[in-house]
Amino acid sequence: MVNMKVIITYMPGLKANFLILLWSIFISGSQGGHYLSYGPDLKPAQGSVWPKPWWQDDTGRYFSVDPENFRLVAVNKNCPLLQDAMARYTKVIRQSAQGYVKAPQTAVIRKIQQLSVNLTQACETLPHLNMDETYYVWGDGRVIANSIWGIFRGLETLSQLLVPMPNGLLRIPETEIYDEPRFKYRGLMLDSARHFISKGKILQLLEGMAFNKLNVFHWHLSDDSAFTFNSTTYPELSLKGAYRREMTYSPAEVKEIVEFARKRGIRVIAEFDTPAHTASWGASHPEIMTKCAGKYAGQLGPFNPTKDSTFTFLNKFFSEIRNLFPDRYLHLGVDEVNPSCWEGNSEIQKYLTSKKLDNGVLPYLYLERFTADISTLGWKQMVWQEAMTEYPYMKWPTGTIGQVWFDFKNVSRDLTARKFDIIHSQDWYMYVLSTGGDWEKFYKVEPLDFEGSDVQKKHVLGGEACLWSEYINEYNVMPTTFPRVSAVAERLWSEREHGSTEEATPRIEEHNCRMIYRGIEARPANSFGLC
Amino acid sequence: MVNMKVIITYMPGLKANFLILLWSIFISGSQGGHYLSYGPDLKPAQGSVWPKPWWQDDTGRYFSVDPENFRLVAVNKNCPLLQDAMARYTKVIRQSAQGYVKAPQTAVIRKIQQLSVNLTQACETLPHLNMDETYYVWGDGRVIANSIWGIFRGLETLSQLLVPMPNGLLRIPETEIYDEPRFKYRGLMLDSARHFISKGKILQLLEGMAFNKLNVFHWHLSDDSAFTFNSTTYPELSLKGAYRREMTYSPAEVKEIVEFARKRGIRVIAEFDTPAHTASWGASHPEIMTKCAGKYAGQLGPFNPTKDSTFTFLNKFFSEIRNLFPDRYLHLGVDEVNPSCWEGNSEIQKYLTSKKLDNGVLPYLYLERFTADISTLGWKQMVWQEAMTEYPYMKWPTGTIGQVWFDFKNVSRDLTARKFDIIHSQDWYMYVLSTGGDWEKFYKVEPLDFEGSDVQKKHVLGGEACLWSEYINEYNVMPTTFPRVSAVAERLWSEREHGSTEEATPRIEEHNCRMIYRGIEARPANSFGLC
Repeated sequence: MVNMKVIITYMPGLKANFLILLWSIFISGSQGGHYLSYGPDLKPAQGSVWPKPWWQDDTGRYFSVDPENFRLVAVNKNCPLLQDAMARYTKVIRQSAQGYVKAPQTAVIRKIQQLSVNLTQACETLPHLNMDETYYVWGDGRVIANSIWGIFRGLETLSQLLVPMPNGLLRIPETEIYDEPRFKYRGLMLDSARHFISKGKILQLLEGMAFNKLNVFHWHLSDDSAFTFNSTTYPELSLKGAYRREMTYSPAEVKEIVEFARKRGIRVIAEFDTPAHTASWGASHPEIMTKCAGKYAGQLGPFNPTKDSTFTFLNKFFSEIRNLFPDRYLHLGVDEVNPSCWEGNSEIQKYLTSKKLDNGVLPYLYLERFTADISTLGWKQMVWQEAMTEYPYMKWPTGTIGQVWFDFKNVSRDLTARKFDIIHSQDWYMYVLSTGGDWEKFYKVEPLDFEGSDVQKKHVLGGEACLWSEYINEYNVMPTTFPRVSAVAERLWSEREHGSTEEATPRIEEHNCRMIYRGIEARPANSFGLC
Repeated sequence: MVNMKVIITYMPGLKANFLILLWSIFISGSQGGHYLSYGPDLKPAQGSVWPKPWWQDDTGRYFSVDPENFRLVAVNKNCPLLQDAMARYTKVIRQSAQGYVKAPQTAVIRKIQQLSVNLTQACETLPHLNMDETYYVWGDGRVIANSIWGIFRGLETLSQLLVPMPNGLLRIPETEIYDEPRFKYRGLMLDSARHFISKGKILQLLEGMAFNKLNVFHWHLSDDSAFTFNSTTYPELSLKGAYRREMTYSPAEVKEIVEFARKRGIRVIAEFDTPAHTASWGASHPEIMTKCAGKYAGQLGPFNPTKDSTFTFLNKFFSEIRNLFPDRYLHLGVDEVNPSCWEGNSEIQKYLTSKKLDNGVLPYLYLERFTADISTLGWKQMVWQEAMTEYPYMKWPTGTIGQVWFDFKNVSRDLTARKFDIIHSQDWYMYVLSTGGDWEKFYKVEPLDFEGSDVQKKHVLGGEACLWSEYINEYNVMPTTFPRVSAVAERLWSEREHGSTEEATPRIEEHNCRMIYRGIEARPANSFGLC
């Protein structure tokens, strides 16, 4: 219960706000026990930061900020990305005042009018794998970082500290935060091929990712089912390979999405999965596919790796993609390649005979040539784990990252022993649903929970939640993702010892409320209540 | 594969539509097998009716309807409800043309310009438990029913038969349908107390219910957590008992919801659960609650049944409710009443001693007096099963309906043996989530699957899916409900022998697409595809 004396002393517009005050008390007053009190089930941890910072020290005292009368000021370096972020967080902080009233009226040290943003080094323009996301935040209104990316993360933290009080001011704790991520790769993958997801929802996904300090949007744009990118070079790919003409992304839309992400320090990594999972390419370009025979007669299998024209085609296509996706990495896919169709195709068999090769060489024919072309285009590469586990003789370009999605105790151990960098996705498949808040299972996943040396563990660059979209469409993508992905985000950002779901529960409750009043269509985190 | 000759013969604007035609073929061409074809996983059952009609006989031939040039005409009785429905379905049929292209170009007998609506008896104005929902539909464009409610169901069926063809016309089969529901009570319950659900989403729920021929919206408006109705008589109930001022329904909003439902033949049954689950009432009216002692000291328990003022209060409150909810039935709740607080309250104990009564009489004190008052207000009553199973001496007013939600094999058997009418809700709790399409488990529930005579089985009036909202809020309520509730709707409407999920799969796929292009925010029904 709050101290009524403090409330009355520090409350200017008492009458007007008395009702709101009562609410805030009621809402704070929720308790367990057999006869339920009214109000929400849980008391959210007011103004707590999600994901949990590396180090935070509070004095227990507070400052205040008037949401209608404060300025974010760049006190050192400046650049368009920073100006954009300050405008954005000015809005976010104003929105905080509309948030669910939670803090009791609190005595404050003083009102802060200027929030200062101290960027110590020149802005970079593109987020990248090794970007510096370290920052300091002081509750008296200072954010300091060496890089623009650290400033982004610091502004997010600063905005989360602010909680509205009954008098309309925002409360901010006298606190000191030093923060940096545990892992540098913290991703969310969207499969927009099995179900199409509109640009509007993708932008909302990115906004929500920024609120969780996620920094990679991995975009799976094609699969057997559909080809969703409107290529200028080969418009027929989506004209024939998409479910419908309007279920595609134009180059302009891709640019908008990539730019929206960049402004939030989120990389966008495109994936056009090959050489399998490519039936939709075959709708317009059956000539790059393999005609199956025997049991699979009449069907089209993986890309034909024995024809020069296959690679000419791919090179031309990926040259276009190179210009739209500025990130250094491209995801090649290479998952679930079944060789039966290659092995039954008479032309391919003739080719092998003429070259004195056997079937075992076919994946290498494809991968060696294709990855060389992709390297020449200036990309580093990501692949699903099978690419590394099933083709042991493949010499992957330096820095190729494997994405682990099953049997990780063995696979992460083996791949890191082979000195591959990896990211973890096992048990972070978001379509896996259970009754309840259903975020705890994601929270408990630990990417380093395999046997291996410290050197091996350093090869784990991070992880990624995956929105495979068999059961996800336009209408459930947001509430399926939020707040469940927040659990993944904290696991990847915060220190390993932050593993208690009990400690995390009131913080994710608060964070979910925050996301909702900021416009994210999130489902409930825990139980009944406002959010 | 469609017959290309037929297509070319019957296709006026060939060039313009050729691409769309190709799509429709591609989409129809989806197949299983190891190497996936592109396009959706499943071929939806084009123009199939959901829920499955009692009797439908198709000739295999088709008519066509021009979505821009047809009229729905009332050829017999008419009334405002009918005019509204015809305007609504004119819009729905026009929307069908925007639906995902699915039918190949098909030869037709002739184009139909007039769809005739033959209502043979005067309109009723209020949907009710025993309303007649029987109808006939002929594919040549006729709907016949004795009641306006049957006309509503028939128009829904007629609209579902229409599938767009590449030439822009809608195809309708030469069919004859006779249809009537298996159960007369087919409900959806929404708990808007644990999480608040906006009016806009409730209207969308009702719209979706009409597309599934559901006919009861059971609205759980208060619970321990929150009191969401803005009473004119006691405004403090929601002022103090709601989560927030804006998380409430005004009388005008209630009227709008009830009217929106009435226009679709959907009854609205209010539930204000008492005497337990009432903590939110205690926020403003602790005097009607029981002050607990001992272990529960400081808490408020169920309504105090020993004070006249409790009933005076309730009578005044429910008089207001009576005017807003015209349905003959009120749901009294009466679930999970724990007597410990009553038994520990010294005033109540004094009262019992003075009257020479024991604790066992307390629930009866409440129920007998309260139900008599509710009857006097002109209502019939519904209760959760505990009200009937735990108070064997209670004489429920004639026609009281019990809602069964657990242990139904025993409870449905016992209650029907005691001649109570019941509805079935067990295993139809929508918040219970599993990975996948997740509708089959609801489809397999059979309300009559308990031991009992035919007479007993006749006491099962139907069933109801329940949206308890611990894990449901504004953002996931629609995709959690649709299309999963469609499975419940078919179980309650169609004959018992329609039990094969395999047969139902392509129909629910079609139905889900239909709901989506009509504006319902439904999640995927089965697997990857357009919907």
